Amino acid sequence: MVMTQARPEARARTRPALIDGDFHNELDSIKDLYPYLSSRWQEHLETHGTRGPQGGYYPRFMDHREDARPPSGRVSGSEVGHSTKDYLDPYNVAHAICIPLTVAGRQSNLDLDAALATAVNDWQIAEWLERQPRLRASLVISLENPPAAVAEIERLAHDKRFVQVQFSGRPQEPMGRRKYWPIYEAAAKHGLHIMSHAFGSYGNPIIGTGWPSFYLEEHIGPAQAMQANIVSMVAEGVFEHFPMLKLVSVENGFGWVPSLMWRMDSAWTLLKSEVPRLKRPPSEYIREHLYLTTQPVEEPHKPEHFLELLEQYGDLVDHLLFASDYPHWDSDDPDFALPNQLPDEIKRKIQYENARKLYGL
Amino acid sequence: MVMTQARPEARARTRPALIDGDFHNELDSIKDLYPYLSSRWQEHLETHGTRGPQGGYYPRFMDHREDARPPSGRVSGSEVGHSTKDYLDPYNVAHAICIPLTVAGRQSNLDLDAALATAVNDWQIAEWLERQPRLRASLVISLENPPAAVAEIERLAHDKRFVQVQFSGRPQEPMGRRKYWPIYEAAAKHGLHIMSHAFGSYGNPIIGTGWPSFYLEEHIGPAQAMQANIVSMVAEGVFEHFPMLKLVSVENGFGWVPSLMWRMDSAWTLLKSEVPRLKRPPSEYIREHLYLTTQPVEEPHKPEHFLELLEQYGDLVDHLLFASDYPHWDSDDPDFALPNQLPDEIKRKIQYENARKLYGL
Repeated sequence: MVMTQARPEARARTRPALIDGDFHNELDSIKDLYPYLSSRWQEHLETHGTRGPQGGYYPRFMDHREDARPPSGRVSGSEVGHSTKDYLDPYNVAHAICIPLTVAGRQSNLDLDAALATAVNDWQIAEWLERQPRLRASLVISLENPPAAVAEIERLAHDKRFVQVQFSGRPQEPMGRRKYWPIYEAAAKHGLHIMSHAFGSYGNPIIGTGWPSFYLEEHIGPAQAMQANIVSMVAEGVFEHFPMLKLVSVENGFGWVPSLMWRMDSAWTLLKSEVPRLKRPPSEYIREHLYLTTQPVEEPHKPEHFLELLEQYGDLVDHLLFASDYPHWDSDDPDFALPNQLPDEIKRKIQYENARKLYGL
Repeated sequence: MVMTQARPEARARTRPALIDGDFHNELDSIKDLYPYLSSRWQEHLETHGTRGPQGGYYPRFMDHREDARPPSGRVSGSEVGHSTKDYLDPYNVAHAICIPLTVAGRQSNLDLDAALATAVNDWQIAEWLERQPRLRASLVISLENPPAAVAEIERLAHDKRFVQVQFSGRPQEPMGRRKYWPIYEAAAKHGLHIMSHAFGSYGNPIIGTGWPSFYLEEHIGPAQAMQANIVSMVAEGVFEHFPMLKLVSVENGFGWVPSLMWRMDSAWTLLKSEVPRLKRPPSEYIREHLYLTTQPVEEPHKPEHFLELLEQYGDLVDHLLFASDYPHWDSDDPDFALPNQLPDEIKRKIQYENARKLYGL
């Protein structure tokens, strides 16, 4: 659902408080990070620029809502004061989880990548968390450089405003692979969740049949990539090994979860000898460890199917988090993101209670 | 559901007639094709062997049920007489659609590939269709060599025992890409459906995040690959351009269809300007053109969820075809493939009526 232009500000005080699981704090340009980068890396960027695996980029993807642009002319979502006035206040957002989508985490030069991740986190602290106490943040890491990622987690884990560690939707390897376990170990040690946000690419096409033609396919594809990542994490035994770890799936939809659980359990019945790390049916790990955000809602053609989905999942009603994707072009209006027919108690869980419990807010 | 060893042959006469949408006729070895290959290609195979893109092969995948092996010692499913006695007769299979999984369609040498496709079809006619009138066949083509594929369709389309054109689960490009349109045009012209069977690889990993570790992931992955292929065919306008073409998805599951339709319709609402070939919501093309087979059934944890799925799809009850996957190791026993709770009328459609109408039997 595209956010409407009309701002119902008069209704703000009567709105129920929200927690937003997908709030984007944006860089106007990479120069915003220079205060947090050494002169060595500033010079590197001036001389060489950035470079990572290609193939996942569509110009449309990074579009922002023009109506959310600050008066300064900077990119929408790049000023905490304006985002507060434009979104957090009128929609009565009690807390929002920052998810910065930057070039950090996707640089081929892994030293640059680690420096950028550190800079993004320091920028988040100084320019977002310090200035708006309602915000929490995702800890950005150099994903394909696990030793640096672990060091960054250790550097910042004391700051409880970081509530999760950020993965892209398509790391270089499926998310369960052993390469990423040091990251999971460090996160679990400090009670940080793992969050995977849709999109991002490390050179693989988003779908398993090669490169698609349209952004439409790229927009639908994250659901498939996330399914693969969840299967990988369960099959490799990540949740068996790190029983406290939670996985938060952002912007990947959730309508596919029941049938994925059914298929995984059927396959496991046949193939459990291949994956002896798993002690229980795959669906049990998913039920315990997976949380998902609402945007984009896969709107069923009949509203009653939404309730069927919640029931088919089992505890989905306790594992679904409201998310706006503000200020991206396809963000959800909190007033219209959930079907009207949902019982108030369920809406309350999705809009507030589930995130409050998950993030300890 | 794994087929049980016990053969309830005494019950055969009281069984309802079945149509099986996924019956595998197998080569014992590539030498079975020599009578249908010129000496030039026989010599080529002796000297050079076969070679195609690698990466999708797991030894387990091609395993067969040992209990289905003919007394001759040849591979299970490689003798029409034995498959008749072992499966078609005792299970009262009125018709079965042959789907031969061979090296044809996946050779880097495209001339060899075309010769192999022709040989497989001639072998099907001589050794299967001529000997067992209950069988129908999938027309094998050199998928990545569209001119040769079109010629092969034209060569055999007069033989109405060929009911569909066979695609692998992962062609070199997503199935909607323009490369494959000549094949769709030839198929539509002759009233042949397009059928995509799970697995097969042209060098891309089955999932969009890179190479997975386990066969378990490869076993679940076809659902994701097929989703991508369906999105591609709809988005590229294949069904708008070929309004009579039907797509049959085999061994890819079906529980994911409702949420995929919902997500596609949501994305289309936002992005329709990118795909002006589409005149209607994507779900309408899916409802009209897509058929799916049962095996493997994503068995819901509660039987009532199976009926919810059928209802969420809309006309799924008219688009679902029974399939056994005989004689593969994970094939379904027709007696246990569907939930007991399904009303008889629905079972009848899935086990017989839908396939009878689709294939004009």
